[in-house]
Amino acid sequence: MINLYTWATPNGRKISIMLEELGLDYEVSPVDLGKLAQYSPEFGAISPNNKIPAIVDTEPGKDPVVIFESGAILTYLAEKHGQFLASSGQARYTTFEWLQWQTSALGPMLGQLGFFAVRSQEKAPLAIARFTEEADRLLNVMDKQLQTNTYLAGSEYSIADIASYAWTLAATGYLKEVLKDSLATKPALHRWLQTVGERPAVQRGMAIPQI
Amino acid sequence: MINLYTWATPNGRKISIMLEELGLDYEVSPVDLGKLAQYSPEFGAISPNNKIPAIVDTEPGKDPVVIFESGAILTYLAEKHGQFLASSGQARYTTFEWLQWQTSALGPMLGQLGFFAVRSQEKAPLAIARFTEEADRLLNVMDKQLQTNTYLAGSEYSIADIASYAWTLAATGYLKEVLKDSLATKPALHRWLQTVGERPAVQRGMAIPQI
Ligand SMILES: N[C@@H](CCC(=O)N[C@@H](CS)C(=O)NCC(=O)O)C(=O)O
Ligand SMILES: N[C@@H](CCC(=O)N[C@@H](CS)C(=O)NCC(=O)O)C(=O)O
Repeated sequence: MINLYTWATPNGRKISIMLEELGLDYEVSPVDLGKLAQYSPEFGAISPNNKIPAIVDTEPGKDPVVIFESGAILTYLAEKHGQFLASSGQARYTTFEWLQWQTSALGPMLGQLGFFAVRSQEKAPLAIARFTEEADRLLNVMDKQLQTNTYLAGSEYSIADIASYAWTLAATGYLKEVLKDSLATKPALHRWLQTVGERPAVQRGMAIPQI
Repeated sequence: MINLYTWATPNGRKISIMLEELGLDYEVSPVDLGKLAQYSPEFGAISPNNKIPAIVDTEPGKDPVVIFESGAILTYLAEKHGQFLASSGQARYTTFEWLQWQTSALGPMLGQLGFFAVRSQEKAPLAIARFTEEADRLLNVMDKQLQTNTYLAGSEYSIADIASYAWTLAATGYLKEVLKDSLATKPALHRWLQTVGERPAVQRGMAIPQI
């Protein structure tokens, strides 16, 4: 049985979506970031970077597998169950490329934009301009890729889409005011958001954790 | 034969280090970021995110494999050659976890710190404080991991170390003035930097591209 340590954020939801897509039974341990529960010694032993998500996969007769970092967890689950990641060839590495693009660029840059443009009381115009520009550039890269591909890594739905969905949705929700000019000109991105968002497993995963 | 598209930066050097570790023949195509060569149509066809590094791996009788994102390239090379990444089990996913930690956190956060604290003429104190604090937190996480492990993912040198070396070196060089208080208290991190830095392949990889 898998225990998912998560919270109601885009990085956490990547994993609940993946678990729902795989149809696995799992338990949810909410880590209340508002109460700084990510810094508890118990959670720190699982996630030494003190961030969600993390999983513990316990199977009878085996050592538990403990993993933090959403990209590593998605890779583990995809490889264990043989789904949403090709086992070899260009398709496999195109999926890793867009997964890495999401975890190293789209996620962190939208995260910084959210802090500087929305959450922070103090305003730093230099930082707002920098992250708005980079977010716009990244959404352009994504839209261009989706103009000629149904999904991020090609014709197949993959862990790259699962990683990117909740973050792209945040761009059109939480960050809408900041990114509205950018989003107005990206039909392929909106088509992809709708296609992915209609998946029942994605809808179930987005509702986790129930808090 | 592999063609490496790179420049004299930490993300580029991850791949030249890996190619040197594997003892492979490769060609280097410098992409002059100072001249905005990353935006040329030729390079954009290889790396749609317009960032280095990227590789094209051409083998007689096979379709060329084209990959951008340093983490995806390291995974491809490790899997192709069966080195620096366990093929299964906890060791495999511990390596992916620290690889993802480097590409999603250590790299982007030190990169932003470099921009706000060193490269930008205009100063945004809020951003400098935010990224200095996060860089310090990340270096603490790394030092703690290295207090009980020879390498980032355990007892074996892996693609997680290869990904982290040039960035950690930047913290002790280019970012030294900003991070000196943080670096003063991290003996395990310095021990690891020295161990990795003494590897001949790391030294050769750090000298690429020759420009
Ligand atoms: N690279 C990490 C990022 C994880 C992350 O940033 N998690 C956030 C929630 S979305 C968190 O735990 N924040 C709490 C904190 O920063 O203290 C991943 O992809 O798993
Ligand atoms: N997540 C990417 C980051 C690549 C990256 O940021 N590359 C920088 C050089 S270190 C670059 O090409 N910068 C040029 C630009 O931003 O225009 C990776 O790991 O490959």
